[in-house]
Amino acid sequence: MQAWKEYQEQNKDRFLNELLQLLRIPSISAKNENKADMITCAEAVKQHLLAAGADKAVIYETAGHPVVYGEKMIDPSKPTVLVYGHYDVQPVDPLNLWNSPPFEPTIKDGKIFARGSADDKGQFFMHVKAFETMVQTSSLTTNIKFIIEGEEEVGSPNLATFVKNNKELLKADVILISDTAMISMENPSIDIGVRGLSYIEVEVTGPNRDLHSGVYGGAVANPITMLAKMIASCHDESNHITIPGFYDDVVNATPEERKLMAAAPYDENEFKADLGVSELWGEKGFTSNERTGIRPTLELNGIWGGYTGEGAKTVLPSKAFAKISARLVPDQSSEKITEKLINYFQSIAPAGVVVKASEHHGGEPYMTPVDSKAYKAAAAAMKDTFGKDPIPVRGGGSIPICALFEKELEIKIVFMGFGLDSDNLHSPNEKYDLVNFYKGIETIPYFHKHFAEM
Amino acid sequence: MQAWKEYQEQNKDRFLNELLQLLRIPSISAKNENKADMITCAEAVKQHLLAAGADKAVIYETAGHPVVYGEKMIDPSKPTVLVYGHYDVQPVDPLNLWNSPPFEPTIKDGKIFARGSADDKGQFFMHVKAFETMVQTSSLTTNIKFIIEGEEEVGSPNLATFVKNNKELLKADVILISDTAMISMENPSIDIGVRGLSYIEVEVTGPNRDLHSGVYGGAVANPITMLAKMIASCHDESNHITIPGFYDDVVNATPEERKLMAAAPYDENEFKADLGVSELWGEKGFTSNERTGIRPTLELNGIWGGYTGEGAKTVLPSKAFAKISARLVPDQSSEKITEKLINYFQSIAPAGVVVKASEHHGGEPYMTPVDSKAYKAAAAAMKDTFGKDPIPVRGGGSIPICALFEKELEIKIVFMGFGLDSDNLHSPNEKYDLVNFYKGIETIPYFHKHFAEM
Repeated sequence: MQAWKEYQEQNKDRFLNELLQLLRIPSISAKNENKADMITCAEAVKQHLLAAGADKAVIYETAGHPVVYGEKMIDPSKPTVLVYGHYDVQPVDPLNLWNSPPFEPTIKDGKIFARGSADDKGQFFMHVKAFETMVQTSSLTTNIKFIIEGEEEVGSPNLATFVKNNKELLKADVILISDTAMISMENPSIDIGVRGLSYIEVEVTGPNRDLHSGVYGGAVANPITMLAKMIASCHDESNHITIPGFYDDVVNATPEERKLMAAAPYDENEFKADLGVSELWGEKGFTSNERTGIRPTLELNGIWGGYTGEGAKTVLPSKAFAKISARLVPDQSSEKITEKLINYFQSIAPAGVVVKASEHHGGEPYMTPVDSKAYKAAAAAMKDTFGKDPIPVRGGGSIPICALFEKELEIKIVFMGFGLDSDNLHSPNEKYDLVNFYKGIETIPYFHKHFAEM
Repeated sequence: MQAWKEYQEQNKDRFLNELLQLLRIPSISAKNENKADMITCAEAVKQHLLAAGADKAVIYETAGHPVVYGEKMIDPSKPTVLVYGHYDVQPVDPLNLWNSPPFEPTIKDGKIFARGSADDKGQFFMHVKAFETMVQTSSLTTNIKFIIEGEEEVGSPNLATFVKNNKELLKADVILISDTAMISMENPSIDIGVRGLSYIEVEVTGPNRDLHSGVYGGAVANPITMLAKMIASCHDESNHITIPGFYDDVVNATPEERKLMAAAPYDENEFKADLGVSELWGEKGFTSNERTGIRPTLELNGIWGGYTGEGAKTVLPSKAFAKISARLVPDQSSEKITEKLINYFQSIAPAGVVVKASEHHGGEPYMTPVDSKAYKAAAAAMKDTFGKDPIPVRGGGSIPICALFEKELEIKIVFMGFGLDSDNLHSPNEKYDLVNFYKGIETIPYFHKHFAEM
């Protein structure tokens, strides 16, 4: 393993420069104007895979942005690791809040500031460089496949079709993804679950037009007031969600798992200070980590109605709207919860207003069992390089493609994220620490080694 | 009186064209970009007063938009009528809901569609044309003064100073205002009261930045949810307002007054059909007319927070906002109720969020006694032209300057509104019926006649 370390040490600067090159391509999947950049970026990824040692690398067209596939098959009797990542990035607005241009990567205080540095170019590129390391040191002990898509930031609308049509191509024993965060460099952790998502939009219509609040106020149901009443009814006094059947399929965490979670480093005062709040909030009977990890939640993501400009306008609006999402845990089903949410809002519609509820894209919750071969290999790899056992944590976010992979390919996923919660994903000044980047490249070959040996 | 009718018949088309000219000026007092239009409009009003027969007309500068004053003093021993109106109009958004451009007046089905057609250009202009009629037919029997301001739609912030500094100039025996509606052409009515107004804006702050709803959702108070809970708490199950002390100073209407109100023509099914609602809403124990006339109300005028664009964004927003106003009845005080509203929202702020409540301009409720000379003259004038006694009604809207006039000038106000509730004031497709416009011009000279004779 000394050979890996030496090779990486010698090629350190080149690895970084190659990443910076990749970060200069504004591959924003949501923007039509960046369509050509997406193709440029896909081509660059393909060339990197070939240069790193792939036997083949192919750009697959989809109805949207292309998928890049690459592989090196050393021996059909050896296990196959499928690496998933994405080369597309989030939009950059508000641009004025960036301290340096999002597509001119800037290194400051040991951090790379650039859109995509952590999410996910910097992270999937570690796998490319780890792969190169193993090839160049003749120590690759697994078959390896890469699927690097270009539509993750817009909900992967064409990935399901691609996966369904290419099951043989994608056949593997485990899927390895670096697109999450760990607690800290001092407290390495592995996400063993991501929450699912249900997302609805509610439209409340009162009168057929905006009314003068003086002439009609008091005699007609106000859609904002009615919407507020409906929203207020979604949580009881203990902040439990009141939607009938919402918790039916929740698998309660075991006392052991809760004990393990409680042992993870967490400083409530630091947490509050970072958010600037004097008090925390949440479901009675659970800690903050449990509330964001093992419990389902219901959040208001947006609300609007009536006059929202400067000053005062005495309008009784015709309509009010809200965007509402729920995070789900095993074994809740996104489809079922979405239906329950829609039914709930329609069933509690107060007299005098009409409530329409509709669905946005959701996703299923996902868990990696800690006793799986995949998890054990990842944990062993991290122990090798960090010097301590990683803490298994339940992430609060959602990665909707997980359930797709499991369903279509019937293989388990392991998340080896090397980012930090402070990386400003989707926000201005996204960054990725150099030390995390190099630590990832160092750790990944150990995963392949352990996975092949197990 | 035949002379009035003939003069008006002969000049009908010109009267209308002059009004259309006035409606083409986008005199939106709330928008900085229309500052020049406000001056253009004030100048046009001044010229109209002079052309109609005023001895003098002056534009008075204020800290905001100018006030136009005009007068014709025929005899110091005769009574003086002060006509109040406003040349400013409401903003026009949402523009896409207008069937014709708001500042290109369009006549359709006998109605003038334009911003300001009813509120208040079309209505104050009736007084200018009625004045012209009396001057041209040498039948003016009162002194007449006009005060046409440019800040009514933004709460008349500078009118108090103007009135206080010009008490002698504005000295009169009655103030006549056409800025309200009547029941219908078949059921002429006179507003004997307007409601007062308190208006606050509430800002709820949770975390110090927008958060990822997956990573933090469930562990931090969501400002939208908290705002909804606060709003939901403002009405009880009988739709009474729960703010402590809110009803303390309400003078309950007498059984006689309620009986009179119940006799006014009102068709609930028609009312519902016009608004497109299947059920009405309101304070238990009161009719719709009572709810909008003799009872105070609390309405949500606007709400916003989080992501309000297309599609879905999983944000847990830092802030949520609402605009909330109350309509007041005698003897509620705007100042006191505003304070109660602000205190209420601050006192019920849930843990984990900070609530800031601030004040927008309000106004006091106002009543015109039915046994006053002013009311009697107005009722007699309407009987002359409509052929029947007008019904005294309590209007739901607010004209904050009323209390100011009464306090500073010690004169009573009479409301001769010729609009209809269906005129879409403050909304897209504001309109004013031609027949109402002409009926107003026909009726107003009779008011002057009766008032002079009483």
